[in-house]
Amino acid sequence: MPLPREYQAETCPIARSLEVIGERWTLLIVRDAFYGVRRFSDFHEHLGIPKAVLADRLALLVEEGVLTRMSVPNGRDEYVLTDKGRRLWPTLWSLITWGNENYLERPLRRAFKHAGCGGIIDADSVCSKCGQQPETSDLVVHPPRRPGALASRDDVVSHTLRRPHRLLEPVRNVD
Amino acid sequence: MPLPREYQAETCPIARSLEVIGERWTLLIVRDAFYGVRRFSDFHEHLGIPKAVLADRLALLVEEGVLTRMSVPNGRDEYVLTDKGRRLWPTLWSLITWGNENYLERPLRRAFKHAGCGGIIDADSVCSKCGQQPETSDLVVHPPRRPGALASRDDVVSHTLRRPHRLLEPVRNVD
Repeated sequence: MPLPREYQAETCPIARSLEVIGERWTLLIVRDAFYGVRRFSDFHEHLGIPKAVLADRLALLVEEGVLTRMSVPNGRDEYVLTDKGRRLWPTLWSLITWGNENYLERPLRRAFKHAGCGGIIDADSVCSKCGQQPETSDLVVHPPRRPGALASRDDVVSHTLRRPHRLLEPVRNVD
Repeated sequence: MPLPREYQAETCPIARSLEVIGERWTLLIVRDAFYGVRRFSDFHEHLGIPKAVLADRLALLVEEGVLTRMSVPNGRDEYVLTDKGRRLWPTLWSLITWGNENYLERPLRRAFKHAGCGGIIDADSVCSKCGQQPETSDLVVHPPRRPGALASRDDVVSHTLRRPHRLLEPVRNVD
């Protein structure tokens, strides 16, 4: 799997960012990390991509300091967003907003609400109720009113996201 | 060149967006469109990618209504951002911000200023001088203080961007 460092414009910040997060699947891995996915097996089951591709993408994200790899007591490794990784939320939010506006009917959209007051987050990341711009860890993702194909999926991530779930909180706390 | 419609998660707005703009080079084409690039030959010279790849990406962007293809009097075609395409600016801005913060020394960064008052645009898209959030067409991109490798490039786009240039304004007005 070739690494993506191909863009010529070395001094363009967009090109530099895409060298890290522009490969197919990478932003969906980062999305899942915001949903609280931490384990290789959970990323794998939820995304349904080949293990070699997932391993390659995770390795680059760790190398670039977007994720950190931590050994946890049960002997597994977990991948957790760093501060640098968390600062990718505006990119994801812009894609959520644009994708919803252009490609998803309202009942299929997930709402993102402010954990503090329950207000809905608007396209500018502002809480429509209290007017604040909440931290990412204060956002709660809600299931769509009409889950569609999601209803039949039974991996741990899909299961967790069927109820309101606070971003960055692990998708499971117990084995 | 296979089309990128491979993501399984049909109801994820990020996946749906990436089906349109997630292919290699596509966001750099969109970036150039914001810089005012409109002609196939100008995209080609500035990006340095194979013509077949460029043609493939432009065709998808037109099909998806991100760009519109217009015949102009001199017999050439021009590609211009639609309203839907312009609403991708927050995605580009988030990548500019993240890429600058993490990968580019300050003298290599381009400043984006508010055409109205000359204030610098901050990471939240707010003008640091007047406090407004300007329209994309009211942003002026400035050359970096230290142009580095850019200084030696002589295509029309690089040439235009060596001086302050208002976004969406065509990179050349005369032949």
